[in-house]
Amino acid sequence: MKSSITLADAFKNSKHPVVGHGKRNVRVLLDAFEGKDGNEDSDMYGKGETIERFQAKMAAYLGKPEAVFFPSGTMAQQIALRIHCDETGKRKVAYHPLSHLENHEEDGLKELHRLETVLLADRDRLIRLDDVRLLGEDVACLLLELPQREIGGQLPPYAELEEISAYCRGRGVRLHLDGARLFEILPYYGKSAAEICALFDSVYVSFYKGLGGVAGAILAGNAALTERSKIWKRRHGGDLISLYPYVISSDYYFDRRIGKMAQYYEEAKALAKMYNECADTIRTVPAVPASNMFHVHAGIPKEAMESILAGVSEETGVGFTAWVKALDDGGSAYEVSIGDRYAAVPEDRLREAFALLRDKLRSYSA
Amino acid sequence: MKSSITLADAFKNSKHPVVGHGKRNVRVLLDAFEGKDGNEDSDMYGKGETIERFQAKMAAYLGKPEAVFFPSGTMAQQIALRIHCDETGKRKVAYHPLSHLENHEEDGLKELHRLETVLLADRDRLIRLDDVRLLGEDVACLLLELPQREIGGQLPPYAELEEISAYCRGRGVRLHLDGARLFEILPYYGKSAAEICALFDSVYVSFYKGLGGVAGAILAGNAALTERSKIWKRRHGGDLISLYPYVISSDYYFDRRIGKMAQYYEEAKALAKMYNECADTIRTVPAVPASNMFHVHAGIPKEAMESILAGVSEETGVGFTAWVKALDDGGSAYEVSIGDRYAAVPEDRLREAFALLRDKLRSYSA
Repeated sequence: MKSSITLADAFKNSKHPVVGHGKRNVRVLLDAFEGKDGNEDSDMYGKGETIERFQAKMAAYLGKPEAVFFPSGTMAQQIALRIHCDETGKRKVAYHPLSHLENHEEDGLKELHRLETVLLADRDRLIRLDDVRLLGEDVACLLLELPQREIGGQLPPYAELEEISAYCRGRGVRLHLDGARLFEILPYYGKSAAEICALFDSVYVSFYKGLGGVAGAILAGNAALTERSKIWKRRHGGDLISLYPYVISSDYYFDRRIGKMAQYYEEAKALAKMYNECADTIRTVPAVPASNMFHVHAGIPKEAMESILAGVSEETGVGFTAWVKALDDGGSAYEVSIGDRYAAVPEDRLREAFALLRDKLRSYSA
Repeated sequence: MKSSITLADAFKNSKHPVVGHGKRNVRVLLDAFEGKDGNEDSDMYGKGETIERFQAKMAAYLGKPEAVFFPSGTMAQQIALRIHCDETGKRKVAYHPLSHLENHEEDGLKELHRLETVLLADRDRLIRLDDVRLLGEDVACLLLELPQREIGGQLPPYAELEEISAYCRGRGVRLHLDGARLFEILPYYGKSAAEICALFDSVYVSFYKGLGGVAGAILAGNAALTERSKIWKRRHGGDLISLYPYVISSDYYFDRRIGKMAQYYEEAKALAKMYNECADTIRTVPAVPASNMFHVHAGIPKEAMESILAGVSEETGVGFTAWVKALDDGGSAYEVSIGDRYAAVPEDRLREAFALLRDKLRSYSA
């Protein structure tokens, strides 16, 4: 049976969505502000009790002297790299070819800050110590994204991270952590955020991925860096008169979900196992997730995979994903991020959905 | 009687604050979201019904083909000027020496966009047609701020605006409107926003000045400009996954207060008259307000003026201002912006406060 509705609609209408925390709607903000009496003063251009208290809380959590709240990670990371370049008198930064900065920011780093980039490693694998050893002396800063989102959220062994950090410190190369999903990897490493951040000179974290907030980011590091970052925040137009809608909601969802990262991680591993046991034509990347996320790769074209997944959703009520992208090899892939919803999916429904997925995948291949 | 508390505290505690809409606290957001059931979808990186509907509403109001919502005017205006430069192949923009871009943005325009600036006119007066005639052919764009905030919100005659616009069009100089307080000047000109904006190639308006929203800005112009501005918004880190906290509150306060601008204007003129009749040592700039705002200049040093105003506040409950700044001539000044609060101040209390202010100013001078 070929599905007649789009996968996006099928997912949206599914009774049992498997991924995410819930709909991204106004309720996300309302929940965070429920019970507020309204007398709390707004922050004013980065100053005020609400924003300063949250910044101090995150600085302590990340084990850094200071932290600054930003409207976005795009802004925070460009600024961190710019400061590392200015402080070292160099113009080059290095990162993975699939870094957010290289692929999703319209080249802001190059267009606004005139920095040059060195792409380390191949697109389909992690940056390793051997890659880092190739960095020239003209590189100010290496950005590591943990986990590497665009390849399914892979992570290097912790010992290798320590080696990379030690190597960079020995060579005077600054190390910046793209921690968009830092909270999500703590169970895998079995380390605190502060232990991991101690390996880096600066760190950015996000509040709307695993934590499920509205928007917002923190940049943490030493006081020289954070003070400079405030000047650049003003220049970027990010020093808003009031950031409290994001600050208060980020704080709320941090408290609400930071303790659930181990659960999401275990659930991701369980779900990945079901995918890998389902049919020969699909597998997860990585084979065993290192966080709450992984990618599903299918040896089936995008349109066919969309139709199959929409059909499963219509027949079982289980929504696996809202979108599938085409891969260069003719196959397709999609991302899975575990949030609050997973625990609410009835086990028998999930098993039923995987059984149907298996049948449809086999019918397609046959 | 010398006041023992700071002016800021005296104003904060005053029973009858004369300026502004109210405290900038979380209530401002809560009011805008009251009654929302939460099912409205978030915008997603600039797309979605809520943000697109508001952009269309503002484009229509401003009489421009397209409008884009930005987190801040700092971001919107730098980007508008950058696009005008890129489209004309020039690197210079002209504006008033007291422009927000020159004084409150940490030189973002120069540091991020590498644009050069030409400062037109003297600091204490408006840009006139004669100044504009001095512009060289290498200037891409002239930015006019209406009203010119840092000199009390002064405005040129409308006919002169039309002449400046015609002159610029004839010379191929783009004209950008810094309309941070555009809504507030409509009663003075007796024109619609669209009529005024028709004189300009691009326009920025703000939602947290006269309208009293949380934060946010709109940049309006033709489709080529707004489409380019979205790319730059992404580069600046302003293309947030969710801007709805600002979009929805901006829309709410626009509807709530756009019809009150004539009232604020009349109230500002009445209040300025009371200041100008109060004592020889104080006067308003401009003598007759052109919007909801004006400045009060006093021939008395900042500290003495603070003490006098704090005393008036403590004795009468009328709070005139939270701050006073020192002027180079040894005197002092402060800004007055009329909002919802003015109408709630009892007339007899206000008269009593001005009588006391007069006594204190005379005692000081004697």
